[in-house]
Amino acid sequence: MKKRVVLALGGNALQKKGETTAEAQKQVAKQVGEMIAELASDYEIVVAHGNGPQVGNILIHEEAASTKEAPAMPLETAVAMSQGQIGYWLTQAINNAFAKKGKRKKVATVVSQVVVDKNDSAFKNPTKPIGQFYSEKEAKTLAKKNGWTVKEDAGRGWRRVVPSPKPVDIVEKKAISELMHDGVIVIAAGGGGIPVYRTKVLKRLKGVDAVIDKDYAAEKLAELVKADVFVSVTAVPNVYLNYGTSEQSAISKITAKEMDGLKKFGYFKAGSMLPKVEAVVAFAKKGGTGIITDIKNLKNALVGKAGTIVRK
Amino acid sequence: MKKRVVLALGGNALQKKGETTAEAQKQVAKQVGEMIAELASDYEIVVAHGNGPQVGNILIHEEAASTKEAPAMPLETAVAMSQGQIGYWLTQAINNAFAKKGKRKKVATVVSQVVVDKNDSAFKNPTKPIGQFYSEKEAKTLAKKNGWTVKEDAGRGWRRVVPSPKPVDIVEKKAISELMHDGVIVIAAGGGGIPVYRTKVLKRLKGVDAVIDKDYAAEKLAELVKADVFVSVTAVPNVYLNYGTSEQSAISKITAKEMDGLKKFGYFKAGSMLPKVEAVVAFAKKGGTGIITDIKNLKNALVGKAGTIVRK
Repeated sequence: MKKRVVLALGGNALQKKGETTAEAQKQVAKQVGEMIAELASDYEIVVAHGNGPQVGNILIHEEAASTKEAPAMPLETAVAMSQGQIGYWLTQAINNAFAKKGKRKKVATVVSQVVVDKNDSAFKNPTKPIGQFYSEKEAKTLAKKNGWTVKEDAGRGWRRVVPSPKPVDIVEKKAISELMHDGVIVIAAGGGGIPVYRTKVLKRLKGVDAVIDKDYAAEKLAELVKADVFVSVTAVPNVYLNYGTSEQSAISKITAKEMDGLKKFGYFKAGSMLPKVEAVVAFAKKGGTGIITDIKNLKNALVGKAGTIVRK
Repeated sequence: MKKRVVLALGGNALQKKGETTAEAQKQVAKQVGEMIAELASDYEIVVAHGNGPQVGNILIHEEAASTKEAPAMPLETAVAMSQGQIGYWLTQAINNAFAKKGKRKKVATVVSQVVVDKNDSAFKNPTKPIGQFYSEKEAKTLAKKNGWTVKEDAGRGWRRVVPSPKPVDIVEKKAISELMHDGVIVIAAGGGGIPVYRTKVLKRLKGVDAVIDKDYAAEKLAELVKADVFVSVTAVPNVYLNYGTSEQSAISKITAKEMDGLKKFGYFKAGSMLPKVEAVVAFAKKGGTGIITDIKNLKNALVGKAGTIVRK
């Protein structure tokens, strides 16, 4: 039986810096597609992906050109739109990588709702900046009008900030598992998933304007589909201690507990390596193999010969 | 065994005139979701849907607010975005209709690429108006800049027109069939599908800016998943002769050949009832049951007691 692998593709794996046209992004997806087609002979693959730059641009367009007749879509719906967009590019890229080999393979993107807890403390303290920059005055006017929280963002201007709650479940988990069981390469939980919560009384789903970290969501997906391996695919081959200094040293194999220790010493940056480290550690603690590496080293990392590999 | 039913939901079934906020559209989806949850105890359901107003608004936003940093997405990618958007609303609405009954049911939206023939004559004569209205001068400037075809639209201004080729295949057909087989209510081929063609040499998929009629695409889906019944869900209970006149008379049961005869006499309007009639006739000729009706009469139509029912 093939090992089941969940890949979490970061923004770097989907977009070259500043090259944001559909054509340019499809070119990047092409390389990802070829890598996945290569892995597919040895592994069952599920692909989760980020959507930071894409959903950012969708929101900028929606808000800048919002009118009474064509009102801006809210963040949760914009995430769904970005899942369609990126899912289409990735699906087609994988289809075409197989076509290049003279093969056909089933590939499908499933629009994914990720359940969060309405009592998650993140809702009391929105921290994730999204969309465009505003002047202080504009930002405060919009905050009043739309019920937004706005904050000054590192001297670059004012932005809307939204909560970043933890994922607790994926609504489409069974459909995703069944597709995998039927030999389909599945793209799911894009952009961390469309954030929804369940209402208290009827357990109805309700969308909520928030951003779920894509590594946490992908790790949750890996748990739910009983994956053997969870890989956070990023821009660097390994996790490093003292990254970017003369003391830089790559971590190859490490236990979840050792990684936790390094985390406590503040080795990993929030909003950068930290969520990836936390996600692979969480996966390893549940008995799976967690990997952090880049696309180039992915194939070798899966056989234990590259990347940072975390086990229980 | 339950009968397999493909529903093609028209724009009317997804949006009240002029009520275009996400909240308002979710309210409309709620009614659709409850109807589908009711049918699901007796039928296997696949839902296809239109996206006219939604993709129109996406394009308006994308183009009006396009910049070098955040360039507008092309039509084919905008269709993918609308599949994510509407698929999310419908999935959640169906999930919630089951939750209301105290039940859970698997529901999934599959992002769908629909293959067209690059030699389809539609590519020589683009006819389908999309996006916003422009002055003649603006339209002609944009046509030159973007390689668009533009036309004057019934005295209302100038618009971009795109080809409307016929669907010949659905890339994700096997994944969709497998989901149905596993008891999942599937939403697919939204907005007529993302239009793609296969390149001559490597049979690679390539997106193309076009609009596939949602009834034709849904009929193709019904064929491919071997549905028993194909329903074009519209705003009226039946197809009528002399609609809106004192001579108006509803068609109840009719053969495909008889319907073809009426079509030849010019009874059905292009861009309105004609594509629906052609789609159900095509399905009936292949041996299935084709129905045109509205949401209110859908349940009765499925047992032969309402709607316009077309058989071979």
